Amino acid sequence: MKIQRGLLMVLCSAVALCGCSHLPDNKDVLFQTSTISALLEGAYDGEVTCKELKKHGDFGIGTFDALDGEMLALEGKVYQIRADGKAYCAEDSLSTPFAAVKFFEADKTIVPDTSLNFKELEECLDRLLPTKNILYALKVEGVFKYIKTRSVPKQRKPYPRLVEVVKNQPTFEFPNIRGTIVGFRLPAYVDGINVPGYHLHFITEDRSAGGHLLECSTSNVTIEVDYTRAFFVVLPEHGDFYQVDMTEKKEGELERVEK
Amino acid sequence: MKIQRGLLMVLCSAVALCGCSHLPDNKDVLFQTSTISALLEGAYDGEVTCKELKKHGDFGIGTFDALDGEMLALEGKVYQIRADGKAYCAEDSLSTPFAAVKFFEADKTIVPDTSLNFKELEECLDRLLPTKNILYALKVEGVFKYIKTRSVPKQRKPYPRLVEVVKNQPTFEFPNIRGTIVGFRLPAYVDGINVPGYHLHFITEDRSAGGHLLECSTSNVTIEVDYTRAFFVVLPEHGDFYQVDMTEKKEGELERVEK
Repeated sequence: MKIQRGLLMVLCSAVALCGCSHLPDNKDVLFQTSTISALLEGAYDGEVTCKELKKHGDFGIGTFDALDGEMLALEGKVYQIRADGKAYCAEDSLSTPFAAVKFFEADKTIVPDTSLNFKELEECLDRLLPTKNILYALKVEGVFKYIKTRSVPKQRKPYPRLVEVVKNQPTFEFPNIRGTIVGFRLPAYVDGINVPGYHLHFITEDRSAGGHLLECSTSNVTIEVDYTRAFFVVLPEHGDFYQVDMTEKKEGELERVEK
Repeated sequence: MKIQRGLLMVLCSAVALCGCSHLPDNKDVLFQTSTISALLEGAYDGEVTCKELKKHGDFGIGTFDALDGEMLALEGKVYQIRADGKAYCAEDSLSTPFAAVKFFEADKTIVPDTSLNFKELEECLDRLLPTKNILYALKVEGVFKYIKTRSVPKQRKPYPRLVEVVKNQPTFEFPNIRGTIVGFRLPAYVDGINVPGYHLHFITEDRSAGGHLLECSTSNVTIEVDYTRAFFVVLPEHGDFYQVDMTEKKEGELERVEK
């Protein structure tokens, strides 16, 4: 009886969340754990497991407990691209201190007729997207003339700040490679919570390698864009999240970390 | 059959949202429509109705379509405090361009043993709350020696920017009054999305008047705090939201608007 009532309450909440004419359904929500501000300050303790994350999306990016590699989620699988540049299937029990995922459904498809480097890819999308004020999930799939990525090495406590970690980041180059770029374009106002602008990761078609995207040159690709009008942020309950100082904006640090 | 499958999918989504050990349940989520950046730029077109809003919370603050007054939601009722300082029951069909609500459940209760002005109330809470890095819903109920509020007058298109509107805001004083302060303390990193720090509205015990809180002096009050670790932001699909320029931070504008 109690369980039935519980299920009914859950059902009512879900209907409340989905049944509103102007609100996107549950599938069209970017789900995020923690904030980029906390990650910049060294809050690398994992809180949400990959198993949990997959309930909120089949597509996205992030990192892992102790900053052990770059995360890329694609078609419901979560990959861990470690400091050796290789991609591993992430165990369901592995946890993340920072990740953003959603269920990917393309609203727009673009097939560029010329080769695009990273900057040109950004400019091309900026021209074609309807507004800079909503969130976009981005998938760029096909053949690339060149890809350059980086990954982050696993850290030990006491954790250094992120800007220190990326000073010694290993980078990887992939000439003439098939694969998929996965990530987001987010509005300026998410600053502090997530990365404004473009934040992209890459994985090879055979799912063997990849990383955080630093440079690219497309050859024959299809760009898919998923327009997203809602985001759901869950803050950590444990680890360093309650302690770190996120009140001060560290100008330029995010750019140094993400580029 | 189709409806049954639809309900089942909704149920599964809800279980996914609620059934995770580290994630707060649906009731402990701050629900927000639009962003403070958009409101600062004059995006005052209502999108979410009060009826929809009440599905996401029984407690909160905001404003109304065309900036027609201050919103205060308390115990499941939504009040509209218009430019005459009077509180009206908001119709379910009335819509809002910006509001934040949640289901209020106190995690901490404080009974101050001295009178507190606004600044002292903030300092008292800052000392007692466990971290500056999560969200708090705040309810201060009882007798006040003094309350000063303001409200905003309904605007006409083309809408002026918010900083222009508040230059001529009507203010209201309430000596020796019973009532309730309703609002939030939000972390620094929500800047651009909502108001960092304290943002409070007031309504009298007889629900006849109130407004955006400018000054207070407590006499005999109980403070209740609801610790909140998740927020859900839904962005408008219509009106000016897609057009306004939210890329530039206008230093000091938010302070001028909110104080």
